[in-house]
Amino acid sequence: MTNSLNIIMFSGTADKFIPLGVLTQTAANLGVPVNIFVTGWATLAFKKDGYKMVTRFPKEFEDMAPALVNGLKDMRAPSWYEMLKSAKEIGEVNIYVCSLMAEALKIKSKEELDPIVDEILGAAAFMQRSAGGQVIFI
Amino acid sequence: MTNSLNIIMFSGTADKFIPLGVLTQTAANLGVPVNIFVTGWATLAFKKDGYKMVTRFPKEFEDMAPALVNGLKDMRAPSWYEMLKSAKEIGEVNIYVCSLMAEALKIKSKEELDPIVDEILGAAAFMQRSAGGQVIFI
Amino acid sequence: MTNSLNIIMFSGTADKFIPLGVLTQTAANLGVPVNIFVTGWATLAFKKDGYKMVTRFPKEFEDMAPALVNGLKDMRAPSWYEMLKSAKEIGEVNIYVCSLMAEALKIKSKEELDPIVDEILGAAAFMQRSAGGQVIFI
Repeated sequence: MTNSLNIIMFSGTADKFIPLGVLTQTAANLGVPVNIFVTGWATLAFKKDGYKMVTRFPKEFEDMAPALVNGLKDMRAPSWYEMLKSAKEIGEVNIYVCSLMAEALKIKSKEELDPIVDEILGAAAFMQRSAGGQVIFI
Repeated sequence: MTNSLNIIMFSGTADKFIPLGVLTQTAANLGVPVNIFVTGWATLAFKKDGYKMVTRFPKEFEDMAPALVNGLKDMRAPSWYEMLKSAKEIGEVNIYVCSLMAEALKIKSKEELDPIVDEILGAAAFMQRSAGGQVIFI
Repeated sequence: MTNSLNIIMFSGTADKFIPLGVLTQTAANLGVPVNIFVTGWATLAFKKDGYKMVTRFPKEFEDMAPALVNGLKDMRAPSWYEMLKSAKEIGEVNIYVCSLMAEALKIKSKEELDPIVDEILGAAAFMQRSAGGQVIFI
C-alpha cells in the first residue's frame, strides 16, 4: 500500500462527496493514513453545519440525481459525512481547510468550521505532509 | 515509468472521456498497466450500449462543444471507446465498475454492463490493486 | 518531497485555475519541479491573451462566484496567471499544451499560444517526463 492517501477536495457538488467518503473510509480500513485538504467550493461544506447544505448537483446531471440519491438511500449507505466521522475513529484521518480559501471566504477562525476539521493549513504545509504519498484532486 | 496507471473515472460528461481514452492508450503503448475504476456518473457509460449515450457536456462549455467535437472529427481521431478497446488489445488494461455505485444505480450483474468491463469491484480491492502506482481522479 | 509535481490541467472554469496557480507556486517555492500539461477546455486559457477570458464558473456555483472573486480581491491575491509567471521565475516550471487538443481546436503553431507556454507536446512525451513523480488531474 501507498504510505498515505492525500485528497485535495475542491469540488463542492454533492456527488463528489461520495468518493471523498468512500476513499477515506476504505483507506482508513486498510490502515493507510489520509490527509484531506479542503479548498474551493468544498470549503463551504466544512463550515459549521455546512454538511447539511451539500445538495447541489452538476447542472448537466441534475435529472439523474434523484436516482443516485434514492439508490444510496435504498442501500442504507452512510452519508459522506458519517463516513468521514467513522474513518476518523478507525484510522489516522486529518482534515485541513486551506488557509487561502478560508480567508477568501471570510472564515476568520476554526470555530466557524465543523468540528471534524483538525486545522486551517497553508498549501505549502499540506504539500510537505503529503510528500511521498498518493495525491488525488477531486 | 510508474509501475501502473490507475484512473478513478467519476465524471460523466463527454469531454472527460477524451483524457480517459488518451491516457489509457498512451500508457498501454508505453507498456504501463492501466486499472480503470469506473464510478459516479461515468458508470452510466459502461452499461451495455452506454457509450452511445455519452453526449452531455458541462453546461458552462456547451457553446464550445461543437468546435471540439468537429475538431476531433476532422482529425479522424478515434472515439474514447475505440481507444479503450484498442488499448486492451495492446496492453494490460483492466476496467472495473465500482460495486457501491453499481448497486446504487440498480445494476444487478455484469451482464448489464458493456463487454469491455472486466469486473464489478469494491473500492478496497481497487485500492489494493493500484498500490504503489499512480492514481488520478477524472 | 516528491521528485516532481505534474498537473494535467483539463478544466476550463475560472475557479479551477486557482489551485493550478497555488499548487504550482507552492511547489516552485519548495524547489519541486512542476510540469503542467494543458488540455481540454483549459487550452483556451493558454491561447494568446486567453488568460483574460477565464471568467466562466461552473453553472451550479455561479451565485457564489462573486463572493470568491471579491474575497480574493480583498486579500490582494495574485491571479493564477501571475502565480504561474512568478513560479516560472522562482523554480523549474514547464507548461506544455497537448498536441491532440491543439489540433482539435485548430491551433496551428506555438505563436498562437501565450508566451508562458514552453512547448506543444504529445501525451506520451508528457507521461515519460512525469514518470516517477506525482500526477494530479484538475
